[in-house]
Amino acid sequence: MIRYPNGKAFEHQAKVERKKKRTSEEISLSAANRGMNLENDINISLEYYREQNIALIYKRPTPINIVKVDYSHGAKIIDAYFEEQSTTDYNGIYRGMYIDFEAKNTKNKTSFPLANITDHQIVHLKKVKLHGGIAFFVISFQLRDEIYLLDSEYVINYYGSGKRKSIPYEEVKKNGCLIEIGYMPRLHLIEAIDTMYFSK
Amino acid sequence: MIRYPNGKAFEHQAKVERKKKRTSEEISLSAANRGMNLENDINISLEYYREQNIALIYKRPTPINIVKVDYSHGAKIIDAYFEEQSTTDYNGIYRGMYIDFEAKNTKNKTSFPLANITDHQIVHLKKVKLHGGIAFFVISFQLRDEIYLLDSEYVINYYGSGKRKSIPYEEVKKNGCLIEIGYMPRLHLIEAIDTMYFSK
Repeated sequence: MIRYPNGKAFEHQAKVERKKKRTSEEISLSAANRGMNLENDINISLEYYREQNIALIYKRPTPINIVKVDYSHGAKIIDAYFEEQSTTDYNGIYRGMYIDFEAKNTKNKTSFPLANITDHQIVHLKKVKLHGGIAFFVISFQLRDEIYLLDSEYVINYYGSGKRKSIPYEEVKKNGCLIEIGYMPRLHLIEAIDTMYFSK
Repeated sequence: MIRYPNGKAFEHQAKVERKKKRTSEEISLSAANRGMNLENDINISLEYYREQNIALIYKRPTPINIVKVDYSHGAKIIDAYFEEQSTTDYNGIYRGMYIDFEAKNTKNKTSFPLANITDHQIVHLKKVKLHGGIAFFVISFQLRDEIYLLDSEYVINYYGSGKRKSIPYEEVKKNGCLIEIGYMPRLHLIEAIDTMYFSK
């Protein structure tokens, strides 16, 4: 690059840099939003299903360890900490069956990393299966705009084998069921559950 | 009572009064403890059932509305409020069936007041039934040391009729199932569920 004494090239270059930065910020922001929105999209979809009496599935509240409560004006919690969910985020009932699942988001395009799944969750999902319930993961590949329902069996097997730290995207696609994205409900979760567990 | 000038009778009487008072305090304290302990007794019983792979039932965490989090040293919640549970306190799976219940304690000996049951909970339990789940109340008459499992149907009917604000003890006893109190588990909840829902 030619450097002019008046600094115009610098300015131009700075503009280009700023534009690049903004664009990548916008992209990552929108991707982050999609990530943040997975939980929200599931919640509003479940609300729709509850209102329509289609399924009764709720998000479990985040467990909080309360250290101190101020009772001087009502009960105000003034010292507390988030605790790790020892189970999964969602459970309920659909067509008489117990339903239990965890939702995870990944920015990885080629595989679903198992890093953010806890041992507790795997143990819990194994037990759900043992007791005759339906247990799965909702996996969002946010850079692909694709969300899959994947039976927990696949995740448990990959997790337990210790060989791999992630499940290849192609495996999720092959063994999972694509969850259609719409308006009402936002995520067609029940259709995916029907296809996966009630179609035979 | 003869009143001696030296006041001995007063002293004796005072001692008797003190003793009476202490005894009644002890009784009410122990009753209060039993009340407080209902939740705890259920929780440790459910833990036992989970560990023994008999049933997978959890207490839902209390929902908390978080207003402010201080991130200067980790994530410390410094302003938050308890929210009303829009569902019931407990749900899970047993013998392939979805289980949902609410536990209530009463100091009333002759009836179970419906005052501390919310509309939300009644709506929720109706929906559990609609979707094919098992829905009940665990009712502790703490002054009787008796805990009953009562199917939600009875509570819904009493609640909905608007005629009564409580269910007579005799009705609970007749239509419910006594939950035996033991050591391990503390409450023989599963036996009561078996008797009520799986014996036919």
